[in-house]
Amino acid sequence: MTASTALADAVAFARSAREEAGGWDRRGAIPTDVLDAVAGAGFLAVDVPAEHGGLGRSPAELGELCAAFGGACSALRGLVTVQGMVAAAVLRWGDREQRARWLPALASGARRAAFAATEPGAGTDLSAATTSATPTVGGLRVRGRKLWVTFGAVADVYLVLAALDGKPVAVLVEADRAGVTVEPIGGQLGMRAAHLANLRFDDVVVPQENLVGAPGFGLSHVVATALDHGRFTVAWGCVGLAEACLDLAAAHVGRRSQGGVRLAEHETVRALLGRDLVEASAARRLCEHAAELRARADADAIAETVLAKYAAARAASALSEHAVQLHGAAGCAQDSTVGRFFRDAKVMRIIEGADEPAELRLGEYALRRPGRSR
Amino acid sequence: MTASTALADAVAFARSAREEAGGWDRRGAIPTDVLDAVAGAGFLAVDVPAEHGGLGRSPAELGELCAAFGGACSALRGLVTVQGMVAAAVLRWGDREQRARWLPALASGARRAAFAATEPGAGTDLSAATTSATPTVGGLRVRGRKLWVTFGAVADVYLVLAALDGKPVAVLVEADRAGVTVEPIGGQLGMRAAHLANLRFDDVVVPQENLVGAPGFGLSHVVATALDHGRFTVAWGCVGLAEACLDLAAAHVGRRSQGGVRLAEHETVRALLGRDLVEASAARRLCEHAAELRARADADAIAETVLAKYAAARAASALSEHAVQLHGAAGCAQDSTVGRFFRDAKVMRIIEGADEPAELRLGEYALRRPGRSR
Amino acid sequence: MTASTALADAVAFARSAREEAGGWDRRGAIPTDVLDAVAGAGFLAVDVPAEHGGLGRSPAELGELCAAFGGACSALRGLVTVQGMVAAAVLRWGDREQRARWLPALASGARRAAFAATEPGAGTDLSAATTSATPTVGGLRVRGRKLWVTFGAVADVYLVLAALDGKPVAVLVEADRAGVTVEPIGGQLGMRAAHLANLRFDDVVVPQENLVGAPGFGLSHVVATALDHGRFTVAWGCVGLAEACLDLAAAHVGRRSQGGVRLAEHETVRALLGRDLVEASAARRLCEHAAELRARADADAIAETVLAKYAAARAASALSEHAVQLHGAAGCAQDSTVGRFFRDAKVMRIIEGADEPAELRLGEYALRRPGRSR
Amino acid sequence: MTASTALADAVAFARSAREEAGGWDRRGAIPTDVLDAVAGAGFLAVDVPAEHGGLGRSPAELGELCAAFGGACSALRGLVTVQGMVAAAVLRWGDREQRARWLPALASGARRAAFAATEPGAGTDLSAATTSATPTVGGLRVRGRKLWVTFGAVADVYLVLAALDGKPVAVLVEADRAGVTVEPIGGQLGMRAAHLANLRFDDVVVPQENLVGAPGFGLSHVVATALDHGRFTVAWGCVGLAEACLDLAAAHVGRRSQGGVRLAEHETVRALLGRDLVEASAARRLCEHAAELRARADADAIAETVLAKYAAARAASALSEHAVQLHGAAGCAQDSTVGRFFRDAKVMRIIEGADEPAELRLGEYALRRPGRSR
Repeated sequence: MTASTALADAVAFARSAREEAGGWDRRGAIPTDVLDAVAGAGFLAVDVPAEHGGLGRSPAELGELCAAFGGACSALRGLVTVQGMVAAAVLRWGDREQRARWLPALASGARRAAFAATEPGAGTDLSAATTSATPTVGGLRVRGRKLWVTFGAVADVYLVLAALDGKPVAVLVEADRAGVTVEPIGGQLGMRAAHLANLRFDDVVVPQENLVGAPGFGLSHVVATALDHGRFTVAWGCVGLAEACLDLAAAHVGRRSQGGVRLAEHETVRALLGRDLVEASAARRLCEHAAELRARADADAIAETVLAKYAAARAASALSEHAVQLHGAAGCAQDSTVGRFFRDAKVMRIIEGADEPAELRLGEYALRRPGRSR
Repeated sequence: MTASTALADAVAFARSAREEAGGWDRRGAIPTDVLDAVAGAGFLAVDVPAEHGGLGRSPAELGELCAAFGGACSALRGLVTVQGMVAAAVLRWGDREQRARWLPALASGARRAAFAATEPGAGTDLSAATTSATPTVGGLRVRGRKLWVTFGAVADVYLVLAALDGKPVAVLVEADRAGVTVEPIGGQLGMRAAHLANLRFDDVVVPQENLVGAPGFGLSHVVATALDHGRFTVAWGCVGLAEACLDLAAAHVGRRSQGGVRLAEHETVRALLGRDLVEASAARRLCEHAAELRARADADAIAETVLAKYAAARAASALSEHAVQLHGAAGCAQDSTVGRFFRDAKVMRIIEGADEPAELRLGEYALRRPGRSR
Repeated sequence: MTASTALADAVAFARSAREEAGGWDRRGAIPTDVLDAVAGAGFLAVDVPAEHGGLGRSPAELGELCAAFGGACSALRGLVTVQGMVAAAVLRWGDREQRARWLPALASGARRAAFAATEPGAGTDLSAATTSATPTVGGLRVRGRKLWVTFGAVADVYLVLAALDGKPVAVLVEADRAGVTVEPIGGQLGMRAAHLANLRFDDVVVPQENLVGAPGFGLSHVVATALDHGRFTVAWGCVGLAEACLDLAAAHVGRRSQGGVRLAEHETVRALLGRDLVEASAARRLCEHAAELRARADADAIAETVLAKYAAARAASALSEHAVQLHGAAGCAQDSTVGRFFRDAKVMRIIEGADEPAELRLGEYALRRPGRSR
Repeated sequence: MTASTALADAVAFARSAREEAGGWDRRGAIPTDVLDAVAGAGFLAVDVPAEHGGLGRSPAELGELCAAFGGACSALRGLVTVQGMVAAAVLRWGDREQRARWLPALASGARRAAFAATEPGAGTDLSAATTSATPTVGGLRVRGRKLWVTFGAVADVYLVLAALDGKPVAVLVEADRAGVTVEPIGGQLGMRAAHLANLRFDDVVVPQENLVGAPGFGLSHVVATALDHGRFTVAWGCVGLAEACLDLAAAHVGRRSQGGVRLAEHETVRALLGRDLVEASAARRLCEHAAELRARADADAIAETVLAKYAAARAASALSEHAVQLHGAAGCAQDSTVGRFFRDAKVMRIIEGADEPAELRLGEYALRRPGRSR
């Protein structure tokens, strides 16, 4: 792929994926050859710098790719998200050797990565992680459980949040190491095709060079970078999902008649689409703003990404709900695209920072400095 | 069952059904023995007069039963709904023979009924029905397709909306008549265990005595009675679903801690539960009011039932959405009760009169007479 | 007035008051002769037992009177509220002499009462009251400031929350005692005609028999009873306000055309009225439920009154906002009834327990017992 | 004023105006010397091209000025709005002589302009205007009534929508012509200091050169340009109002304690501020986007301005409502800034295109082209 075509290619790829995605959702898995095709097209690494094997694209371009994927299949967008999260963490906090070893492999998709932070009984509060990384002969011995690992069932390597002497650390654990058990899970409300898995690490020994960042910085720096990156991609995925719902709803009401009247001729329908357009547009503008701040490494970029993700996930949730409503029974049928989006969108309001902690964080951001919305 | 115990039995039955309902949802069917148990316990006919084999209970008692079932499994509540719809139509518009023939069988559950009105391309607008009932030797020849028939896959008889010489008619069609084809459907967003089916009637001949009500009154009277009854049961089912979500959410936040703090200690969580309590309570009060009007055959009973169903379906939708949010990832997991309720509740805002026509209808009701809310 | 006519009289009185109320609002005061007429008609004491000079009406009847007044003029309803709050506190916590002395005078309107709890810098948190009541020769010496006293500018007696040796007490302070300074205030957002005043008590000496209830119980019992009663009347006043907005909006859209189309013919307008009817109805049902619980002294009556007031104030706020919107510029004009309602309704969400503490309180109520909405 | 300082000056000017604006609102008029000061500082014409006496600033700069003014006093922002509307119409549709005659006078503030379109019984639907412009000796004879003319009481010239032989025309009518009657109005819900007036034109004769644009284009082109410009300035004014509410609320909750706890320490308060920040930010981003499209004369600029105005007016309405709620009684007191903003914001949802027609228009915009939100 040449640099200039990445986005157009992604849009075309997404368009055909949308047709298939209902089936992937029903069967609970994106086929492996599709995962390979995404990697092969270079879609996994558009923002990784060219010197590390990526395409060196801007945050805005990464965002547009995620919007295209999000408008087709949230699981597919999730693949870009998790690979990007691990790559971002390694790029920022890894040392020269780690970057050389991992980034080209992640950018090319030669290695699939996943992010393993959540534990039983922990949820949003990652500081309570009990997975341990204990110094041992030959490196670190990792022991613990991780839940809800997106693409965990097919990943080659996990970025694992653990505790070393009580200090948070981020450790890369290869899936083929002895003691790693992968338990695929299915039947979730949304993102069913995203190869989720729970993981068990039973005294898995990894070499010391798998430790990313210094002990004590694993959560506040390494994992935070990954989550910030993930949030940005989820936000844009939600923009795409919301816009797709608006388009699908508009197409449906333009086509469908009841009692001899096209649904689009109902004022209430047009007014709803009008409100939805406003919400989708707002989400997009906020994501664009976050992309600009990220491009210039603005100090507010992280907070504005939280804001954009919050707004976009809510927009995706609202518009998918409306799209199902406008589709009526058809929106509730098996393989309905808007029905799938409705289930997926709900998940977006929980992952990568749920609505509730985001509201508090943004409230603190508003309190800290007057005029923050400028 | 004695008359005095029906409700307590229903509550106990529902409580155990809730444990099973996740599995029924996953497998796409309530087991037949459960359907039989519901019938055997007398739950299918609590409001059918005793002279016709029912329990002669008040609308309020029927409502409480539906709330109990709705708080366990919307598909189970749907069984009560469809049986009750057909029974109500026959009770009100059937002649003496029809009542004698059908009501005891429906009340005892010896026959399972379903309601077949929706057609391809029609949805909310039932006046566009193209299924035909043509006079023929030996009665009427029925020809057409019906969609989304709840419990259609296991019913013994369908109340079918058709057109006879351009006039709407309601016809009972037994499932075992020649020319009836039942196509079970699955994988819907919600109410997955409700044995939905699409039906085909290929020149099915039924005797004249299967016609309920006079030609021309099939929609405005017979089907309208069925829908009104169905709406009332769905409304109460939604009250039960909403209240169950509130209880499940309250139990979860009372139990679950993050960062060493129980979720219930968060002000934002308590405030949300407070708002949810208000919405659930409002839905219940409106349903109680509708029940009172129905008990005294008030002229406003139908409109107030529309109002109650609208409010209750929205409450169910909102509270289930909040309950999933409070449960976080656990609410998105397979077999999550609140996750199932979230999917089911969305369907409630479409069936038996979607939100949008209900708003218009209620707006007209408000316009017709000032002081309508009194 | 005979007992049987109170409500019909109140409705008729309110109807004519609505015509005048715009002028009262503009001039910032209900005329004194109107206040006297309200008293003379017996409207100030419908729920005071007949043995104490009242009409002995049920909570539901008191509620309907407040709804009638609330649909005309919130300031007028406020008169009923404050007189009723003080009467309720004396009835429940006063001794035999206090009841004999005050209740007939309050019931007949021979004495006007007001409720003085809020202080500078305290707001919702009444436990921080710094007004002191110090034992002295001849009784108690009261010293402090009270704000936002509804009908404070024309009251004959105040029920004052103070602290005696650090214990909350409720003291009746006559307005004509030495040291009482009344500072009328005006220009507020809403309830402009309600004769608000700030009060100063500069070493006002009152006899010991003016103390209502035992020291230590002034807030948790005496003032709590007053606030509970006030909340109930505000709730019903909001029901009346909301219903009046719905009626005024319906009348306006039935009359007003734009572009040759009556506003009522717009689907979006009808749908809005439909939603508003649902919200007004829900508020009414919740208030009726609270009235029933109060009539039988149910343990949940106080909490259900909080719930009803919360819902009704929000309904009043929403429906008045919509009514202004539907009236367009006319709703923003001087003396617009819906414009006045819009300003008044906002105040209802703050007084007698603001939305925010109510949500928390209701959340705790939901947490304490499952199935609370039943 | 030098070009480079306009915005900083406007911000400083607005800051001091905010202190005064409560009094202006109470007395119903911005003092004339303040109006002159605004003109003298060059704030009335920042976007008029320099060749016509203005400052030639970009839409974004005009927007920021309106945000600064909107955060202080909506009436003051209204002055910029109406002067700008007339200037924009003359700039775009006036001929060379009209531009030479009017633009420098409008830019310098030597002449104050107002926009007179609304008539009794017409409201949003301007096509129903019945004011007539009849050819006569010496030009046109104008006859009719206009309502709700912002700054109509102090304007030197009105841009009047009329009908000439049934064709819409836009005519400039000087206030000092014979037959012009100005009836100042007051006491409105909001924008009280904006010198509103109703106008009567009793056979007012104006010269032919006062006609702006060709007959038939008066509404669709001349008035449409004025309204589009007005909408853009109102949108930005609402952004400023919303942001000011957020700042005032944040400052209040950071300062105010109840029960020994600063309001800002309540999670529910912080969460509310978080949501408000999202809504204010979204409004700002949408206005910035509209400004960009306007700067490059994009074909979607008008529709995106409608969208931005809709979102911003709703944000202003919501945030001012929340700010009053957080201020409690203080927010309802006379001269409360947030109380004034609350009243003003409601007006914003009606003027320059009410919410309802905007929703329909945006719905049609969404239907016309898929992917519209991109």
